[in-house]
Amino acid sequence: MNTVYQFNPKLDLTFERIVDVPRELVWKAWTQPKHLMPWFCPLPWKTINCEIDLRPGGIFRTVMLSPEGKEYPNLGCYLEVIKNEKLTWTNALTPGFRPAPAATHEGSVDFFFTASIQLAAHGTGTRYTAIVRHGDEAGCKKHADMGFHEGWGKALDQLVAYARKM
Amino acid sequence: MNTVYQFNPKLDLTFERIVDVPRELVWKAWTQPKHLMPWFCPLPWKTINCEIDLRPGGIFRTVMLSPEGKEYPNLGCYLEVIKNEKLTWTNALTPGFRPAPAATHEGSVDFFFTASIQLAAHGTGTRYTAIVRHGDEAGCKKHADMGFHEGWGKALDQLVAYARKM
Repeated sequence: MNTVYQFNPKLDLTFERIVDVPRELVWKAWTQPKHLMPWFCPLPWKTINCEIDLRPGGIFRTVMLSPEGKEYPNLGCYLEVIKNEKLTWTNALTPGFRPAPAATHEGSVDFFFTASIQLAAHGTGTRYTAIVRHGDEAGCKKHADMGFHEGWGKALDQLVAYARKM
Repeated sequence: MNTVYQFNPKLDLTFERIVDVPRELVWKAWTQPKHLMPWFCPLPWKTINCEIDLRPGGIFRTVMLSPEGKEYPNLGCYLEVIKNEKLTWTNALTPGFRPAPAATHEGSVDFFFTASIQLAAHGTGTRYTAIVRHGDEAGCKKHADMGFHEGWGKALDQLVAYARKM
C-alpha cells in the first residue's frame, strides 16, 4: 500500500535508526503486550498495562507509571497493520474509529498525534523509522519539548536489549 | 473484516433503509465525485466540489453551497474501503491520517464524527445502513439537532433518483 503521507517539518517529528535486530522481532515487540511492556517506557518510567487488538479500528492502550507512582493512561486506535512492515495508530480516535472526546485529555499528552512505525530489512537488522504527525504546530512543538527524540531513542535502546534476549 | 464497533445510543446516530437500487450503484454514487455531487446535499443546498482518493488515509473532501451562496468545506480521511460493502471516513483526521487541527473548525460542523456506510444485497436492491459515531454526547446531540435523519433521508432519496438514471 502506498502512503498518502507527506512529511511536513512544522507538523511532524521523525526518528530513524538502523538496529541490529531482525524486523520480525521488532514487530513482535510492538504488537504483543507481554513483549511491549518490558521496553516501551524509558526507565525509570514503567508500562504497567497494555491492551492490543491488532487490526484497523482495534484498541491500542497502555498505562504508564511515573517514578512518583502516578498512572498515565493512553488510549488509541490502530489505522494500518501490515505485518513486519508498518504499524500506524492515533490517539485522535478511540477503538472502533470513534473520535476521541473533545473536552477531556486524560492521557499522558494533551494533544492529538498519529504515529507510524515503519520497518525495512537492512542486512541482518532493521531500518527503523518512526513518523509522528500532529494537527497543528503547537502540538508538534509540545511533543518535541517533552523530549520526543530522547524518549524514542531510549525506548528503542530498551527494545533492542530486550529483543536480543527474546 | 469484523467490525470493532459497538453501538452506543448516547454517542451514535444511525440510519437504515431498504432501497430499490443494486449496491454496486450505491457504491459508485458514494465513491466517484461526478456521481456523488448530483445527490449528496439535500436541495436547495448543492455540492459544488468533491475530491476522493479511495483508500485508507486518502482524502474525502466536499464543498457545499448554501442557498444564500455561502461555501462550507468538509475535509476528511477514509478509514475503511471495502468495495460494495463498507465505506468509513472521519473528519477527526485529515488526509494521511493526520489529526485535524484542534483550534479551527472551518467546515460545516464544529464537532468530530466517524461515518460508516454499510451496504448489503437485499433482493434486487440494497439494505443501506449508515452509522455515525461521535466522541461525546454534545457532538451527537448537535448532529441530531441539525436534522441528521431528515438530511440523510433526503440525500438518499436523491441518490436513488439519480442512480435510476445512471
